Amino acid sequence: MTEQQQRIVFFVSDRTGISAEGMGEALLEQFENVKFKRISEPFIKTAEKAHELVAKINQMAEEQEHRPIVFSSVANDEVLEIVKKANALHISFFDAFLGEMERELGMTARHEVGSRFQNIERYDARMEAVNFTLNHDDGVSDKDFKQADVILVGVSRSGKTPTCLYMALQYGIRAANYPLTPDDLDSNDLPRMLKPYKHKLFGLTIQPERLHDIRQERRPDSTYSAISTCRNEVEEAQAMFRRHNIPFTNTTSKSVEELAVSILQACNLKRRF
Amino acid sequence: MTEQQQRIVFFVSDRTGISAEGMGEALLEQFENVKFKRISEPFIKTAEKAHELVAKINQMAEEQEHRPIVFSSVANDEVLEIVKKANALHISFFDAFLGEMERELGMTARHEVGSRFQNIERYDARMEAVNFTLNHDDGVSDKDFKQADVILVGVSRSGKTPTCLYMALQYGIRAANYPLTPDDLDSNDLPRMLKPYKHKLFGLTIQPERLHDIRQERRPDSTYSAISTCRNEVEEAQAMFRRHNIPFTNTTSKSVEELAVSILQACNLKRRF
Repeated sequence: MTEQQQRIVFFVSDRTGISAEGMGEALLEQFENVKFKRISEPFIKTAEKAHELVAKINQMAEEQEHRPIVFSSVANDEVLEIVKKANALHISFFDAFLGEMERELGMTARHEVGSRFQNIERYDARMEAVNFTLNHDDGVSDKDFKQADVILVGVSRSGKTPTCLYMALQYGIRAANYPLTPDDLDSNDLPRMLKPYKHKLFGLTIQPERLHDIRQERRPDSTYSAISTCRNEVEEAQAMFRRHNIPFTNTTSKSVEELAVSILQACNLKRRF
Repeated sequence: MTEQQQRIVFFVSDRTGISAEGMGEALLEQFENVKFKRISEPFIKTAEKAHELVAKINQMAEEQEHRPIVFSSVANDEVLEIVKKANALHISFFDAFLGEMERELGMTARHEVGSRFQNIERYDARMEAVNFTLNHDDGVSDKDFKQADVILVGVSRSGKTPTCLYMALQYGIRAANYPLTPDDLDSNDLPRMLKPYKHKLFGLTIQPERLHDIRQERRPDSTYSAISTCRNEVEEAQAMFRRHNIPFTNTTSKSVEELAVSILQACNLKRRF
């Protein structure tokens, strides 16, 4: 039996490093048989911090069997040049592409940390969307369904709330949600509150076994969590979606990210920032 | 006066495209004088979809003065090869780095869409963190402050809730929050509920003028939103943070992402997935 390879991975940025982590993770998951140990190094904005970081990377390189991998998104050239001297495989997103983009666009990049995130309009749109979502969680109030960009519909615990919050935070989308109650499900009709907003509805469904597991955590061995209840509710919810031509998706093996992007696409929603 | 250059930008992925968008945006913001029009093309998983997309890109290239820019994270080689034929500047994150990583790691990449997001443990950690945050929003209950990874403290509308939710969704961190009331601020002491958890506290402060604007939206021309109230509250909150050695940051010009990453770093918190 061969031992599994281990690698230290650094995510380095002069800002949050969120984009370097996102793309770095997408690349790392292409390698299944390596154990990666991750270290995030955000806000490396000065030469001094960069030198400290290089010392840390070099020490890791000496202690480990293999040198580390560094994913960086560093706009500041001075910092980037220092980080590049570290003993590591350096995947530098800015180095790789900025030159090509400069040639294509016929101009020089600013090579400085940008202000994308320091944007009051963006912050406000986000706050508004988050507040909207919190105020319309679990169908607490229908008075502003008309202001919603989308209304997620599904049985209790089918994944509506995290999906709504993700859409609010990530895209500024005003996502309300409406939990289908047993009464709603017994009827052949759409719930009264939803009727005026049929074009905004998107359904979430889930595997009954998974729903059972989730509900067991909340109220163990109750009617609510019984597998028979879960089966019936899911079946009736799906029948409702089909009867009224409501687009829907199964959340069971999907991440919140995948759900959000699928809903954006299906409902033709535009991000607000 | 020269006209501002306009460019169509495509974000293409066989998955959500979130990582390609994140890194693509980081690169785009290095160019200030171009107007970029963004088109997201997630879930391009088949040769058929890829051909349709190429036709769309090529049409755009003909209609526009300049060819589009395509940022892609496509793991599937067949799809990637088709997309590369489009008339565009193609920034392919997988093409650029997978080969280099394969050589470094001494193995071949899987070249297929991974399962990073389709992970029940990750989903559960996230659900738990989101539920935790929702149940502990605005200090509704202190009974589980002991289960919190961090407790954000600040005056009303200083940005606690969106930051908590972002940390929950993005890192699975259990972030509670506690709003400082005028009564809390009048005292020299820490609020009673917080005393046992001093080591978990992180303070948020904000420019009084900005706080005034935010509160005006909520309760126009009230004592609550008056600039003098905002000034006093912020001053007293900062004095409290200093008196009790609570680390704190000013949210005014920071994004939710920056706040989350700063708090993770300052409190030495580890992501739960």
